[in-house]
Amino acid sequence: MKPLNKLSQQEIQNLKQTLKKRYESFQSQNLSLNMTRGVPSTEQLDLSNDLLTCVSENHYRTENGVDCRNYGGVDGIPEAKRLFASYMGVSTDEIIVAGNSSLTLMHDTFMRAMVKGVMKDSPPWCRQEKIRFICPAPGYDRHFSICNYLNIEMITVEMTDQGLNMNEIESLVANDETIKGIWCVPKYSNPTGVTYSDDIVERLANMKTRALDFRIFLDNAYAVHDHTDNPDTLMPVLDACKKAGNPDRVYMFGSTAKITFAGAGVAVLAASKNNIDWLRGQMVFQSIGPDKVNQLRHVLFFKDMDGIYQLMQQHARILKPKFQAVQTTLEKELGPLDIAQWTHPKGGYFISVNTPPGCAKQVVDMAKKAGVMFTPAGATYPYQKDPLDRNIRLAPSFPSVADIEKAMAILSVCIQRVALEKHN
Amino acid sequence: MKPLNKLSQQEIQNLKQTLKKRYESFQSQNLSLNMTRGVPSTEQLDLSNDLLTCVSENHYRTENGVDCRNYGGVDGIPEAKRLFASYMGVSTDEIIVAGNSSLTLMHDTFMRAMVKGVMKDSPPWCRQEKIRFICPAPGYDRHFSICNYLNIEMITVEMTDQGLNMNEIESLVANDETIKGIWCVPKYSNPTGVTYSDDIVERLANMKTRALDFRIFLDNAYAVHDHTDNPDTLMPVLDACKKAGNPDRVYMFGSTAKITFAGAGVAVLAASKNNIDWLRGQMVFQSIGPDKVNQLRHVLFFKDMDGIYQLMQQHARILKPKFQAVQTTLEKELGPLDIAQWTHPKGGYFISVNTPPGCAKQVVDMAKKAGVMFTPAGATYPYQKDPLDRNIRLAPSFPSVADIEKAMAILSVCIQRVALEKHN
Repeated sequence: MKPLNKLSQQEIQNLKQTLKKRYESFQSQNLSLNMTRGVPSTEQLDLSNDLLTCVSENHYRTENGVDCRNYGGVDGIPEAKRLFASYMGVSTDEIIVAGNSSLTLMHDTFMRAMVKGVMKDSPPWCRQEKIRFICPAPGYDRHFSICNYLNIEMITVEMTDQGLNMNEIESLVANDETIKGIWCVPKYSNPTGVTYSDDIVERLANMKTRALDFRIFLDNAYAVHDHTDNPDTLMPVLDACKKAGNPDRVYMFGSTAKITFAGAGVAVLAASKNNIDWLRGQMVFQSIGPDKVNQLRHVLFFKDMDGIYQLMQQHARILKPKFQAVQTTLEKELGPLDIAQWTHPKGGYFISVNTPPGCAKQVVDMAKKAGVMFTPAGATYPYQKDPLDRNIRLAPSFPSVADIEKAMAILSVCIQRVALEKHN
Repeated sequence: MKPLNKLSQQEIQNLKQTLKKRYESFQSQNLSLNMTRGVPSTEQLDLSNDLLTCVSENHYRTENGVDCRNYGGVDGIPEAKRLFASYMGVSTDEIIVAGNSSLTLMHDTFMRAMVKGVMKDSPPWCRQEKIRFICPAPGYDRHFSICNYLNIEMITVEMTDQGLNMNEIESLVANDETIKGIWCVPKYSNPTGVTYSDDIVERLANMKTRALDFRIFLDNAYAVHDHTDNPDTLMPVLDACKKAGNPDRVYMFGSTAKITFAGAGVAVLAASKNNIDWLRGQMVFQSIGPDKVNQLRHVLFFKDMDGIYQLMQQHARILKPKFQAVQTTLEKELGPLDIAQWTHPKGGYFISVNTPPGCAKQVVDMAKKAGVMFTPAGATYPYQKDPLDRNIRLAPSFPSVADIEKAMAILSVCIQRVALEKHN
């Protein structure tokens, strides 16, 4: 097979016929494959089943004797704070260990900023005429949804191979007081899989922002989620902000959603002591404390950071063949034609595909009619609008390798069919 | 002993001497007793220890096959919705089953009202110049703290023996558009223990409110928390609101905090389908779902409403002697003098004492110096200001009967000493 632009008319006609037949053959199989969301597989969840029963009537107290079943302790039990401070690369007075969802921590941090501002004497965001947020894209749809829900205007800044287009971002934040923050997934970014370079982290920490109440919402969802032996490393972001003299600039979020149980894990918020004190001072009005029993379960189950790393190696053994199946199938099917690009992440939960411009929506629709669901095209952009209509997010964690191979073959057939149609 | 106002000067002097000696004798014991908060005792928590291990690797799916360990299901698993709909007296499309804290549900419902209003086309509360809330008092300090946190002005309306002063409340809400709601603990009210009469429920449901976006925040924390064989019953509030043509008026909150584990239970929000749809439509931005594993634990542990009732009878057996110890000791120590009143609730977690006016703060301070901590005087009122400085909340659930008897003796000695001092 030659690249598309070197094919003769006859070759194109033949290819179209072949693709049509393959597509119809897939359709006739009445498939139902789902690659829409980054959910752990059953096999992955099984790795943490000991979590379910490790707290029992014989052991329900913290190391300092507190009964986890009872009320109290708004920012987490001591041993959980210690473990997750280490996980997030901060000290124990720079962390809050909370409930089952980091999305909740992000959402609630926005809500508090809306009604109270982000620090003493800073005006509540909801009292201001207009608030804007920088949204690197393609990115995580649930981040963008929070902004949309709160009528925060989103400014799309296209992701680069190194992560962020810092020139554009620096210029934006330096000149616009209404820009109050930026969404970041700094490691194995959703969906492009990129990890920010040291240079990007340092520029984020150092850049001059016109808004004094500017905040980086840093969703470090994949901090230890490596699939390879030479994983990416991320420069510690809070340290960089401190060094830059902007210690209060960043809120960092994490969770065990993709370590233990997606729906029943533990979520954490790490930030400067200033920020933690400000937020904890408000969290006392929201709760008499998180589910300490579940925090204790996690500490007993992990024991320490080594326990987390060992578990992540087991996850990697399950995930690696799935990600490999995406790469191999796409390479075999699409490589020769040179009509699409996709990412090769060393960890995380996603692979990002760029079709030729103007094709993504049609490809996703066509795949759906052959029984394969992908995240809706456009979902990875603010307002669900991919300006070039080319990005498709692949989430290979849940399906089996066989299903992934089939789904990728169908995706490839659909991309080729739509691209050939546009090509003419 | 005679009532205080019939004592001679000599008798008063003698009594003062006796009380001083008793107080000093208590002080010399270096006691450390805590009756500040309504927390379940260890013995009560032990009743639910089977909850810790009833979900295991052999059973983690819902009745419709959903893996509780994974993401999903923003408003609760079906069997939990069914059980708690029954608990709250509503249908399954009128309930959201959430995380471990009803306080969180209340707080978050306020936050959503602040930034989005309480229904389509209703202005966000945070955009309005002034918002006011009716706070029946004595009441629950954490309710008042939420209002205070959000700069919502609190209007104190004194509680009556039947519950609410409806004449005053009806007159307030009819004439003031800035009054957006009222806090209610309708059964075994915190701290007075009163249960609203049918008449009060019907008037709450029917009253004309000037604000179209008026909401009752009904914290039904003690719905099944009876200590006696002839418990209070509460008219179903949502039904009353529907009958009155105001189905969207009430948000009802509940939890298993005082049924299973105070810190690791399940919380619920019940309201009209309209309200539930409005709130759930926003909760999707906050979370990919509550901890479904813990919901499944509760369903497996309770099985059905009968399971809840049976458990509550075991709680009652533990709590009844403690509440009885308060009554007996106060009656013995204070009854003859006729200088204080206290409540005789048939359930719930509190007994409310009224000292002579102007004494409560001093009594609590004096008790503290003898090693007994009570909820700070004033805490049961908005802005921590009890206008008559007379209300003290007693929380007898945690200490032992012996400790309660001692604490009540000390309280009685302190009340008498302060009252006698004021009397002269």
